[in-house]
Amino acid sequence: MALPRVVIIGCGFGGLWAAQALKRAPVELTVIDRTNHHLFTPLLYQVATAGLSAPSVAGPIRHILAHQRNTTVLYGEVSTIDPAARVVVMENGEQIPYDYLIVAAGTTHSYFGHDEWAPYAPGLKTLEDALEIRRRVLLAFEQAERERDPAKRAAWLTFVVVGGGATGVELAGTFAEIARHTLRGEFRRIDPHNARVVLVEGADRVLPPYPPALSAKAQLALERLGVTIWPGRLVTGIDAQGVSLGEERLAARTVIWAAGVKSSPLGADLGAPLDRAGRVKVAPDLSVPGHPEVFIAGDLAALEGVPGIAPAAKQMGRHAGRNIIRRLDGRPAVKFTYRDYGQLATIGRNAAVATIGRVQLSGFGAWLVWLVAHIYFLINFRNRLVVMIDWAWSYWTYQRYARIIIRGAKSR
Amino acid sequence: MALPRVVIIGCGFGGLWAAQALKRAPVELTVIDRTNHHLFTPLLYQVATAGLSAPSVAGPIRHILAHQRNTTVLYGEVSTIDPAARVVVMENGEQIPYDYLIVAAGTTHSYFGHDEWAPYAPGLKTLEDALEIRRRVLLAFEQAERERDPAKRAAWLTFVVVGGGATGVELAGTFAEIARHTLRGEFRRIDPHNARVVLVEGADRVLPPYPPALSAKAQLALERLGVTIWPGRLVTGIDAQGVSLGEERLAARTVIWAAGVKSSPLGADLGAPLDRAGRVKVAPDLSVPGHPEVFIAGDLAALEGVPGIAPAAKQMGRHAGRNIIRRLDGRPAVKFTYRDYGQLATIGRNAAVATIGRVQLSGFGAWLVWLVAHIYFLINFRNRLVVMIDWAWSYWTYQRYARIIIRGAKSR
Repeated sequence: MALPRVVIIGCGFGGLWAAQALKRAPVELTVIDRTNHHLFTPLLYQVATAGLSAPSVAGPIRHILAHQRNTTVLYGEVSTIDPAARVVVMENGEQIPYDYLIVAAGTTHSYFGHDEWAPYAPGLKTLEDALEIRRRVLLAFEQAERERDPAKRAAWLTFVVVGGGATGVELAGTFAEIARHTLRGEFRRIDPHNARVVLVEGADRVLPPYPPALSAKAQLALERLGVTIWPGRLVTGIDAQGVSLGEERLAARTVIWAAGVKSSPLGADLGAPLDRAGRVKVAPDLSVPGHPEVFIAGDLAALEGVPGIAPAAKQMGRHAGRNIIRRLDGRPAVKFTYRDYGQLATIGRNAAVATIGRVQLSGFGAWLVWLVAHIYFLINFRNRLVVMIDWAWSYWTYQRYARIIIRGAKSR
Repeated sequence: MALPRVVIIGCGFGGLWAAQALKRAPVELTVIDRTNHHLFTPLLYQVATAGLSAPSVAGPIRHILAHQRNTTVLYGEVSTIDPAARVVVMENGEQIPYDYLIVAAGTTHSYFGHDEWAPYAPGLKTLEDALEIRRRVLLAFEQAERERDPAKRAAWLTFVVVGGGATGVELAGTFAEIARHTLRGEFRRIDPHNARVVLVEGADRVLPPYPPALSAKAQLALERLGVTIWPGRLVTGIDAQGVSLGEERLAARTVIWAAGVKSSPLGADLGAPLDRAGRVKVAPDLSVPGHPEVFIAGDLAALEGVPGIAPAAKQMGRHAGRNIIRRLDGRPAVKFTYRDYGQLATIGRNAAVATIGRVQLSGFGAWLVWLVAHIYFLINFRNRLVVMIDWAWSYWTYQRYARIIIRGAKSR
């Protein structure tokens, strides 16, 4: 008899943990991803800010799953899901039938209906995004050095981060550090110290999901690094020359989008109710209402009280995988319970904010927690060791070793 | 009184060593490069074959020269040199006057009049080239896994390296290793071990500049790794489907060009005689005949008995810098003498060939020499340490940690 076919779409934290939960299950498992790598997204901002190389935060999916003999990895993009026919359709028309499906396709940037802003304000979701941001930031200093007109030079030295969540805070803090420390003494016509980093946030404080006291501490730490914070302001326009905020205009040649995400369009194929961000409102066991053979894991799942962070995606992935094993054993799927280990955001070197249960941490202690947690969770031993050396080196020298401008194919 | 203005074009081995020779000279030094990094080209093939990350073999020029207070680094492309007016003209029209000039602009690929082959057979000169080759090789295995037609699948699993010099030998050997070891057990429909690596060389043996006995040893080592060597054959056509060699046709979706180089066109601006490859026939003191204030260093210089390798470029760069100092002191420039420390080429793990003076080395001993030399000469301490760890890890596990397919801007 043929083994039950399980398909997982997406190999981020949700998909990979689901695949590993099914490691010894008597199934024929197919893992589909449109990249060839699992990405350690919590450190992606370090790639964007030249602190780590791309391979330091990414591992080939085939290699991670090579010893899982029941698993086939498929590199390609899913075009649609047909839940009635129980088939996943690839972009080349290939059809992949399933008995059970886990959709862990995650999210992408949302420009809130202003997709025309995308070329001027890249977001940070993929390795390509990170390398593009790195290229723009490093090039901006080079352009400033060559520019003789003071106003144009100031626009090259102005960096705007839109969105004051964890990613925006991490990027803005690191940009300020690069300007004040990393590049010191390297230019002859400009002083990178004069660069301006502006963090724009629509809410009245940075890190809105955190307790207000920690937001205040984060704001103070950012300001100490030299970041200008503009809370309670909405971006109304972005173009090649800068950012509009209502009547106000800010000339800036580098704008980074860290403001909003929208869900993978695959969620809509399932015929289930979606929330405002396009996430699938899943049943308590993570299955899709009306399709008990389809589960959602990670950022694509809308479930009360479960945040869109890596530990939650891992827990959901593992739970979805285990629920499939239960179903195969003839047992019912069980409810998902989120275990909250806390949240962490870092603000440059030496400072971070964290909530761990009811405990709130900030400053150097929180930063140490952040460092240990992130090195610990990096996917394999080699990466951990190399990342530790890179960071130790960067910490003492303020240097960022990945400061290499790699031109995209377009600009060659 | 204004200081004498010295301009260096290109910051490879020739340009960087020239700049460092002028570190304490009473001059106003400008170093121009069209990338922001000095590249350790002898290890570039490791980036192309996913053994090292891009930042491991590249260092930001500004950082390397930050403490040289007499030096300005200019990121940009030189358009022409006007030796009569003593001016370097940038691509944006900016004019940079000089009293002394060192041209160390190196070489690029030459398709021997067949530039239409370029899109189908990328060469290996820049970091972008290396990442493009890495992407193509990794994608070929992915495409083969998805392809159901056996002939098309075989074409995806055929890798042709055109040119049997050091770069061609290093690439072919490493491709074979990846197919046989690195990817083992990671695919379900194909066996990467069946991949075919063909090394085409126009001369009658690989590594033509080496003694015939070492060429024979290199050929044996390559064949042991599984490389098919086709000596004495000329490529007459390259397209998206494969390679033509006269009447013969080889279906291959991945072709790498390691066959020929041509000099930077800047050499022709100087009005001096060029050799067949476009290199400037320099005077014994490395100056340009008729322009004693212009020196050439590195691959762009044609000088009897001096090979186009990194140690020669460094020596020429240092010599050109010191000759400028002599001229400033009112002393005459002196003749350049090449000190031959030998040549080294590696063939996968454990094997290499080397000539050191009259000594010829091959096998594991030569490989150890190669390893020590390359780690020693890597530009800074951090890189050395991280490269050592990466290599130790790769050596024991056969893994190549940089196996990340990064899509170019064009394909997004």
